[in-house]
Amino acid sequence: MKIILIGSGKLGSQLYKTIIYKKDLDIIQWVVRSSKKTVTPEGIPIVQKVDKLQKADIYLLAVSDNSILKVSKKLPNNAFIVHTAGGVSLNITNQKRTGVFYPLQSFSIGRDIDFSSVPIIIESKNKKDLIILKNLAKGMKASFYEMNSKQRAKLHLSAIFVNNFTNHLFYEAALICKINDVPFNLLKPLMQETIDKLETMSPRAAQTGPAIRKDKKTISNHLDLIKDYRVREIYKVLTLAIQKNDVQ
Amino acid sequence: MKIILIGSGKLGSQLYKTIIYKKDLDIIQWVVRSSKKTVTPEGIPIVQKVDKLQKADIYLLAVSDNSILKVSKKLPNNAFIVHTAGGVSLNITNQKRTGVFYPLQSFSIGRDIDFSSVPIIIESKNKKDLIILKNLAKGMKASFYEMNSKQRAKLHLSAIFVNNFTNHLFYEAALICKINDVPFNLLKPLMQETIDKLETMSPRAAQTGPAIRKDKKTISNHLDLIKDYRVREIYKVLTLAIQKNDVQ
Repeated sequence: MKIILIGSGKLGSQLYKTIIYKKDLDIIQWVVRSSKKTVTPEGIPIVQKVDKLQKADIYLLAVSDNSILKVSKKLPNNAFIVHTAGGVSLNITNQKRTGVFYPLQSFSIGRDIDFSSVPIIIESKNKKDLIILKNLAKGMKASFYEMNSKQRAKLHLSAIFVNNFTNHLFYEAALICKINDVPFNLLKPLMQETIDKLETMSPRAAQTGPAIRKDKKTISNHLDLIKDYRVREIYKVLTLAIQKNDVQ
Repeated sequence: MKIILIGSGKLGSQLYKTIIYKKDLDIIQWVVRSSKKTVTPEGIPIVQKVDKLQKADIYLLAVSDNSILKVSKKLPNNAFIVHTAGGVSLNITNQKRTGVFYPLQSFSIGRDIDFSSVPIIIESKNKKDLIILKNLAKGMKASFYEMNSKQRAKLHLSAIFVNNFTNHLFYEAALICKINDVPFNLLKPLMQETIDKLETMSPRAAQTGPAIRKDKKTISNHLDLIKDYRVREIYKVLTLAIQKNDVQ
């Protein structure tokens, strides 16, 4: 499979690193806008612009949501144009052959991701093109799931809750620990157990703590301990939400 | 070490199961208020009341926060009275010998916890009694950390963020998935990576997603997708908090 990879950000770089040594997958060009090099250390041609690209089986866009439409328009009319954004519809462009290849994971610079544990959400305008996406996922040793754009948008929203928002709670906890000279690492087994519990029970059944047991005294103590009003807002909103679910 | 264990709730049961087969630790009586039995399957005497208990090296209270004071008052004047509550001060009772043995973990019925990965936070009124707490933790193969009540209260507050609140975010994500016929399990690798990332970066550096990149379009799409106003509140409060940290 001949692939042209477009984009070299957090996801683009990981896709490059993952695909480069897979035997059934060939990156024939890598579009890196800001690059001054013309070839990667592995010998893959680097180009700066998306016009005048070679012919490929798939044009894989790892660009920002806002650039998908703009980049797509510059690609050949019959190109299979595949974006990687969780929250963007398949039909963002009206080109003939479009697809989505959304790796459900959070990518950061300096952190390599093993794609064999990343679910890839796939979708294509033409049924026939879905095979290309499946083969791409298989070639990367990743598992894949077919989903329409509406479902994917909801999955992407869920991902914000379990990753971005959860990470922010970790941030607040780490800050509380730092200020009080307590090692944040002590919380790691608890964080792990929060996930592990869900192997055997639902999040609702797994809930513990002052909110669910309506322990007003502890809640009021905690609110007294929190100096930052925004953190107090987080505490209040989540405590209320936990208690609301309990009576549903 | 002779131990009298008081309480048979989520934590009490786990303490019993863990201590019962440890060679240096002997539970000589287990106080189970509601029990009609007089002995456990392992041959440990069960009693219903805390008055007239035998003499022990440690009276380990795994009771609700509200019952700690009441139970403590009924124990012998020279007893080493140790509670297990993260958010309760060492000085809740003015008895001579008090201590805290707080396992930093979330306990649920039907889920066995391996104490070798649970940090135990310890504190005692008399320095000498701290040795008993250390030996108890060692006997349970657990690691232990000395901390004063103020620090412990903050650690307990942090635990609410990384466990109760995080679990609630998982609850909301699971609900969104369920309503939209998307398997919640697809999110598990992302949940795991959210924790694993913190081995190599801070929560602040690990943050990704629409909030941190000020992606108003995606945020607005997400708010449109959320029907429940309380969930929208959670989304807004956490998005704002993430953005606020970015400019600090």
